[in-house]
Amino acid sequence: MTGVKDPAGLSPAAARQLFREGLVTPTAGFASGYAQANLVAVPRELAYDLLLFAQRNPKPCPVLDVLDAGEVSGPILDGDVRTDLPAYRVFVDGELVEETPDARSWWRPDLVTFLIGCSFTFETALVLDGVPVRHLEQGVNVPMYRTSRRCRSAGALAGPLVVSMRPVPADRVADAVRITARYPAVHGAPVHVGDPGALGIADLGRPDYGDPVEVRPGEVPVFWACGVTPQAAIAESRPALAITHAPGHMLVTDARDAAYQQP
Amino acid sequence: MTGVKDPAGLSPAAARQLFREGLVTPTAGFASGYAQANLVAVPRELAYDLLLFAQRNPKPCPVLDVLDAGEVSGPILDGDVRTDLPAYRVFVDGELVEETPDARSWWRPDLVTFLIGCSFTFETALVLDGVPVRHLEQGVNVPMYRTSRRCRSAGALAGPLVVSMRPVPADRVADAVRITARYPAVHGAPVHVGDPGALGIADLGRPDYGDPVEVRPGEVPVFWACGVTPQAAIAESRPALAITHAPGHMLVTDARDAAYQQP
Repeated sequence: MTGVKDPAGLSPAAARQLFREGLVTPTAGFASGYAQANLVAVPRELAYDLLLFAQRNPKPCPVLDVLDAGEVSGPILDGDVRTDLPAYRVFVDGELVEETPDARSWWRPDLVTFLIGCSFTFETALVLDGVPVRHLEQGVNVPMYRTSRRCRSAGALAGPLVVSMRPVPADRVADAVRITARYPAVHGAPVHVGDPGALGIADLGRPDYGDPVEVRPGEVPVFWACGVTPQAAIAESRPALAITHAPGHMLVTDARDAAYQQP
Repeated sequence: MTGVKDPAGLSPAAARQLFREGLVTPTAGFASGYAQANLVAVPRELAYDLLLFAQRNPKPCPVLDVLDAGEVSGPILDGDVRTDLPAYRVFVDGELVEETPDARSWWRPDLVTFLIGCSFTFETALVLDGVPVRHLEQGVNVPMYRTSRRCRSAGALAGPLVVSMRPVPADRVADAVRITARYPAVHGAPVHVGDPGALGIADLGRPDYGDPVEVRPGEVPVFWACGVTPQAAIAESRPALAITHAPGHMLVTDARDAAYQQP
């Protein structure tokens, strides 16, 4: 799909270089063993609300790091958050105005960048234990859905919980829960197993973000809290400017997945 | 020591009422099974720095909740944070100007209150597993020490790591680590086992906060990150106003200890 021969075998720095040079692709499966992160950059005056929103909603918004205003690199990445992701979304007054592979023309020195854990981190652990990960098998982006569940609001920020979905064979659901529960810093255990309707999801075949995947007979849709949740809050709460990753197109960090696994 | 017949058997509301009515005592051992919290209230303009400081130093500063500016009650306590602790410390320009059982005369509507996890939460689990907790046995406050380790700074806030110390028999140190590691939201596993000198602690008999406790032959001093750490950062960073609990004199919350235990 990507034209990259062995995306899993890339180093984080090599993956970031490919994206910096213009490769646009979902990052699931890239740089196996290294943590990927959701990105949200907001003006300094909104940073407290966003940090508090994350603190109050740790399942969808587990903060891995916050860069100081104007900083574009940090302890978990030796690079540039303005260029090193495959694709960005730019929100002005809550409206998505551009999707771009290079965010530099929108950057301002007062932007504070949040790096938020991503469920791709535990996908390696699922695969190693033989739990199928359908979007990896199909070579597409993970399906994500806005739900009818509200997050706890914080100052100017309010919005719905967004979830990612992976179909899991019924006899492996317990394993999927057990394995992902060991990674609370990257969304942890599922928030919901089974009935999409209970989350207000009308049609699994029409995700709000990412691509649909096949749910086979005997499989159960399993839902994990998703780091796109802040984007839904931004769309609803309409700050003057916000720059995020494009869903599924994450920052590949230098931190190892294992660093976010519980003992 | 306290004149309270069965402090462990009190409900959180009953404990808070005693403190509201004037009882001044360290709270270790009160309302067994319920989480206690460190309190730090700062003006709204410092709240982002404090929340970021906590995010960057999660071992000493695990945030349980943040109240909105001006709020004095919240989801984990049905009460009043200005009166329901046995003792407060008031810092003006970083100087400790008063220790008082009632903080109302210092309160301002722009204060943002942080509730931070406390290691008293895992002491019940230690005792239940037969690991001795010396300050409970001796009926004194837990000993706490400023260390030579620096926290990661955040904006205007910088300071040393503060630790609490419990002497543990050498053959139970592994158990103490294992048990407390299950409670990452209340400081979790120790940050250091053994040599106080490596933490810059010259004399265990002279703690910076709380009371000294006996370390018996065959026991090892074990150090946990401590929620007094923000107070040390406030003393060093000198904000205009900060109100905290007095060390060891915590907020007894309505949240159960078990809520902060990992599955």
